Amino acid sequence: MARALRKHRMLVVNPIISAKFNEFDRAFFNRNASPLFQIDVKSLKYGPASIESAYDETLASPFVVQEVVQAEKNDFEAVIINCFMDPGIEASKEISRIHVVGAGESSINLALLAGDKFSIIDVGPSRYVSYSPTRLVVKHGVQSRFVSVRGVGIRVLDLDKDLERTFKAACREGEKAAREDGADVIVLGCTGLAGLAHRIQDELKLPVIDPAIAALRAAETLILARLIPDKVAYPRPPRKSLKLPF
Amino acid sequence: MARALRKHRMLVVNPIISAKFNEFDRAFFNRNASPLFQIDVKSLKYGPASIESAYDETLASPFVVQEVVQAEKNDFEAVIINCFMDPGIEASKEISRIHVVGAGESSINLALLAGDKFSIIDVGPSRYVSYSPTRLVVKHGVQSRFVSVRGVGIRVLDLDKDLERTFKAACREGEKAAREDGADVIVLGCTGLAGLAHRIQDELKLPVIDPAIAALRAAETLILARLIPDKVAYPRPPRKSLKLPF
Amino acid sequence: MARALRKHRMLVVNPIISAKFNEFDRAFFNRNASPLFQIDVKSLKYGPASIESAYDETLASPFVVQEVVQAEKNDFEAVIINCFMDPGIEASKEISRIHVVGAGESSINLALLAGDKFSIIDVGPSRYVSYSPTRLVVKHGVQSRFVSVRGVGIRVLDLDKDLERTFKAACREGEKAAREDGADVIVLGCTGLAGLAHRIQDELKLPVIDPAIAALRAAETLILARLIPDKVAYPRPPRKSLKLPF
Amino acid sequence: MARALRKHRMLVVNPIISAKFNEFDRAFFNRNASPLFQIDVKSLKYGPASIESAYDETLASPFVVQEVVQAEKNDFEAVIINCFMDPGIEASKEISRIHVVGAGESSINLALLAGDKFSIIDVGPSRYVSYSPTRLVVKHGVQSRFVSVRGVGIRVLDLDKDLERTFKAACREGEKAAREDGADVIVLGCTGLAGLAHRIQDELKLPVIDPAIAALRAAETLILARLIPDKVAYPRPPRKSLKLPF
Amino acid sequence: MARALRKHRMLVVNPIISAKFNEFDRAFFNRNASPLFQIDVKSLKYGPASIESAYDETLASPFVVQEVVQAEKNDFEAVIINCFMDPGIEASKEISRIHVVGAGESSINLALLAGDKFSIIDVGPSRYVSYSPTRLVVKHGVQSRFVSVRGVGIRVLDLDKDLERTFKAACREGEKAAREDGADVIVLGCTGLAGLAHRIQDELKLPVIDPAIAALRAAETLILARLIPDKVAYPRPPRKSLKLPF
Amino acid sequence: MARALRKHRMLVVNPIISAKFNEFDRAFFNRNASPLFQIDVKSLKYGPASIESAYDETLASPFVVQEVVQAEKNDFEAVIINCFMDPGIEASKEISRIHVVGAGESSINLALLAGDKFSIIDVGPSRYVSYSPTRLVVKHGVQSRFVSVRGVGIRVLDLDKDLERTFKAACREGEKAAREDGADVIVLGCTGLAGLAHRIQDELKLPVIDPAIAALRAAETLILARLIPDKVAYPRPPRKSLKLPF
Repeated sequence: MARALRKHRMLVVNPIISAKFNEFDRAFFNRNASPLFQIDVKSLKYGPASIESAYDETLASPFVVQEVVQAEKNDFEAVIINCFMDPGIEASKEISRIHVVGAGESSINLALLAGDKFSIIDVGPSRYVSYSPTRLVVKHGVQSRFVSVRGVGIRVLDLDKDLERTFKAACREGEKAAREDGADVIVLGCTGLAGLAHRIQDELKLPVIDPAIAALRAAETLILARLIPDKVAYPRPPRKSLKLPF
Repeated sequence: MARALRKHRMLVVNPIISAKFNEFDRAFFNRNASPLFQIDVKSLKYGPASIESAYDETLASPFVVQEVVQAEKNDFEAVIINCFMDPGIEASKEISRIHVVGAGESSINLALLAGDKFSIIDVGPSRYVSYSPTRLVVKHGVQSRFVSVRGVGIRVLDLDKDLERTFKAACREGEKAAREDGADVIVLGCTGLAGLAHRIQDELKLPVIDPAIAALRAAETLILARLIPDKVAYPRPPRKSLKLPF
Repeated sequence: MARALRKHRMLVVNPIISAKFNEFDRAFFNRNASPLFQIDVKSLKYGPASIESAYDETLASPFVVQEVVQAEKNDFEAVIINCFMDPGIEASKEISRIHVVGAGESSINLALLAGDKFSIIDVGPSRYVSYSPTRLVVKHGVQSRFVSVRGVGIRVLDLDKDLERTFKAACREGEKAAREDGADVIVLGCTGLAGLAHRIQDELKLPVIDPAIAALRAAETLILARLIPDKVAYPRPPRKSLKLPF
Repeated sequence: MARALRKHRMLVVNPIISAKFNEFDRAFFNRNASPLFQIDVKSLKYGPASIESAYDETLASPFVVQEVVQAEKNDFEAVIINCFMDPGIEASKEISRIHVVGAGESSINLALLAGDKFSIIDVGPSRYVSYSPTRLVVKHGVQSRFVSVRGVGIRVLDLDKDLERTFKAACREGEKAAREDGADVIVLGCTGLAGLAHRIQDELKLPVIDPAIAALRAAETLILARLIPDKVAYPRPPRKSLKLPF
Repeated sequence: MARALRKHRMLVVNPIISAKFNEFDRAFFNRNASPLFQIDVKSLKYGPASIESAYDETLASPFVVQEVVQAEKNDFEAVIINCFMDPGIEASKEISRIHVVGAGESSINLALLAGDKFSIIDVGPSRYVSYSPTRLVVKHGVQSRFVSVRGVGIRVLDLDKDLERTFKAACREGEKAAREDGADVIVLGCTGLAGLAHRIQDELKLPVIDPAIAALRAAETLILARLIPDKVAYPRPPRKSLKLPF
Repeated sequence: MARALRKHRMLVVNPIISAKFNEFDRAFFNRNASPLFQIDVKSLKYGPASIESAYDETLASPFVVQEVVQAEKNDFEAVIINCFMDPGIEASKEISRIHVVGAGESSINLALLAGDKFSIIDVGPSRYVSYSPTRLVVKHGVQSRFVSVRGVGIRVLDLDKDLERTFKAACREGEKAAREDGADVIVLGCTGLAGLAHRIQDELKLPVIDPAIAALRAAETLILARLIPDKVAYPRPPRKSLKLPF
């Protein structure tokens, strides 16, 4: 029990206003965590119901930052931003001195380790599909390992309405990514797909990255390797007057 | 007078809470505009006093987006986000059907036209210098034309305290960029330097890009070329519930 | 009237021997110019009837350079080389101290501003299509923003024989570029298509760049931003003996 | 105790003929492993005394492959090739159906997660320094995140003769990498430096990657995320006659 | 006759255990060599029967290196490693002071000279096809000139069983590479295809590179241009104890 | 003697008006050619006295093309454009069905074969130095292998006035390229340096590429490998009316 008190505490931030996934996610993350970690989950006080656009991301980001600031005060060692678009991540890394990892950056990182060339299978309206994930890949400078992004054509908030349909659509697009685009690793581009990765992997016979799991492993790795947060790339912002309605 | 009514109306958003530059900027932009344009200037209701970090940018962005939404309702044809970091630009492009141009993206674009290899002379705390502008260059995929970023070591809010010192520091760094880094075009990395570009150009004998002027020209160009905003790269965000304190 | 005398004077060079487009182009450019500019148009004394190959370009280039030299003597502030292949542009920039802009470089530059990923719709014999425009993109180092080139399969000198056929072919290829290649901006790869851009834009619902308009805007921008020509990237050639038949 | 039997078993292969580090490494890896893992260490029967060149690597590789084949038969779930040059890694991935991770690929991968731009601090004769690590970076396609490699000028087999000298040399080169080259993450380019990372990190105030730890975390991550080995990128070699003296 | 004694002597190493191609290759290379050269051919004492995987390559490489060491002692001026995968090439370059050229690197090099964009037509099991040649292209940093790799689906050891079938399959894939992928140069990705290049070239009307011929020309070029081997990129390995079963 | 008639005939075009190097070059090329080749040398009827700028290149190019057309009629199998800037090369490749090789493209190609990372040591006014050679590297898409260009600060026409001074300057800059820039291969960026390469190589202990020799080897290679000229990348220009003063 004394040992339990010394577990590394991490906070998962669901960057949406709904708390309905928090319970499930708490169980999911703690079940998958290595025994040295204990994980809490929170959602936002303000922001959008889901993140499917830069617009949603921009509105969610200040409130993600707030949660990271609060998490540092509450002695969490790391925060996981549980959304593939990594809302608020640069600002969060700047303002805190704890590890902040995004599901998007972690997934891409794990894809590089797991194989050679990856595709992203995304959800939401298809027109967004080719821009947001591609921008993330460009930001991280790993275009040479990225072959395509494909969308399942189901909006985030509808993903769990018919999980079999979601599963089948992801398999269908993943197979096209492998056969037509040459992918050997599949990245699921939405944390709303958490839990389907292994079934899709069994179907496709390719490594399939679950973004929530990728983020969990990334945060554990940074802590267990005892790496300090990078305060050169993400220096503390200079203090200045600030006027906010929240 | 009937003609004046038909001028293209553009709004410059200073993405900071202070209104102290608005008067100056209104004169500056209208003086430099081609005769077919009329320009208004606004600053933000909420946000930071200046933008020097991703943290500042994240906090300013939702309020920039609000101004763009309002500007579209008020029949402006374009909005200029008057800051080199382009806060809120993707979200603004998504949510509106008018042209939105950022001083950062415009400056980089004009640098590509004006010469071969560009350096950015930035302001603010030196540690940010090598990260923010470089991320902008990476985002736009033009690293092959970018040679360096150098900082003058003066914070944004101190730029106009000793304008001669600012001018000299910019010339000194610009000269190093040319001689040591091989730049043949200099981009001023902060709209707070608006107005110094021509003096620095006379000194360095190289094209020197003023980000405010670059943004003005970019907005005029998009309107005069009668190009429609790109709603494929920036599709309208799907509607959803949203809870905000403002 | 005194004001009219102070207009910025620019010369458009049609780099072909025929003068038959000059009248049309003079009207077109002056109608589209901002009120501060006045534009003359000339074609070449020697050279090819159209430019569809590096061979044509090589034969036209010395005579383009001659016109630029003459234009500087005649106090033009800028020369527009009105052909997507930018014949003679480096030599012209070296030998003069005025702005020289090419329709090709200007179109690519404007495409970067107008959207995210562009395709070029070219004319002329299909075998050239995939080489010349691609070489221009490589030269400017912006491959990461370029997705494809497609040809309408009509030779330059036949473009205006059946303008509806030309229009339809451009729309058809532009739509393929958008749907199959992922383009969100279309660049028309030939100044012979000048005037069709807006109709194609209305059809495709994507920004469509007219190379003549792009060059006009680029030249206006460089002058209005009071940028000096880049004499580092394009230094004055050393004097030496030269023997020419013209 | 029943639980102990269910630990994930991993084998560390020291790809050299000497067994003198095995004892130390077994303690080091098990001490740093998460509680779910148990690690054995082996060195090679044949091969070089250290790996400082492609020549050494080529001679060690077949014997590394042998160990991986044997490890799979012995029911290890993963093999760590404990050398930054990753000798025999592609062949090992092809011939087996277990996870094989190299210290080099793992370190680069972790550097991408830990910060923005990394330098490698290498050991051994200085002439190799700029080639081998750079080839690894090129192979993984992440040049845009890599800024430099610097050598401490101490040969592998002399690293532990004067550990303070090694430590000081690594700090000196790491500081130059940060200040002159712009690195914000340091990768130690030799598993012979295992154990110094935290001291160097404390000195430099930058994240410092230990390649042995990076490999350990990478192997744990692949297993805990339940990813299958990528048999598309590394397909099973076709059977054929083979004549070997071992 | 005195002159014949002064011919440049080169050794072709067939990096497989079978000697059955040696006779044919000796005739082939000497027939194609320029008159200043005389060529011997050897195969390996140990290794695989063919090279179709990184596994085969890893097992062959030490024995290739042995042959290079021996060739230097026997006063050969250059060694050609007669396999597209270039087994053991870096180690061979390090350990010797004579020229060592690989059929893979030579073919890619000649493709760059012969045209603009190349595809590789490979043999062997199709799944390997997209990885091995692509890794070679990445290693040499020439991805911008490479458009695709396509496989004929015939295993190396079956290539000469039905030469007409092999020829037709190579033509079919080469035509797809030209028409669908945009290649204007075809590289045959296996020295097992030596001799078919001209027939395929006649069929496709595109330059078709034979890897054995490419290697021969490359070796001749390095010697005739009197270039010294690059001992900076491939420095002599430091001496150390080494234990080998051969 | 019958044999001599069957030698492959190649023409070297010195793309300048002076014929004073022709005699020397004829001897130089024939002395270095393999026994199967016989080489003639011509200079231009019109054009500049030397090529040091894009301006010179543009004026020389049409007359180079004329010589290539004439050479094809005169049954030469290949033309070497004997200048590092490759004037008129694309047009020449389009208009002819024989091999046309440039000294610039050949040198870069040979540098890729001879080592890992190359620098160019150029002549002429230093300001040109960094642009022309770099544009050539960009055009060929091999930036990842290029580390720097350095100028000896001697104009082309003065190179042979004090050959020792030229030699020493080239050695000095070559050494800086190796030590400061990391080059392991040196390319001499001007055919005016033909003949110094071996002395510089002896001094620097690095492979040093002579552009005239590189072009000779490239032309021989294309012919001996019996590759056809690439008429897809360089298709025959469409016929059209053309008005020229020569």
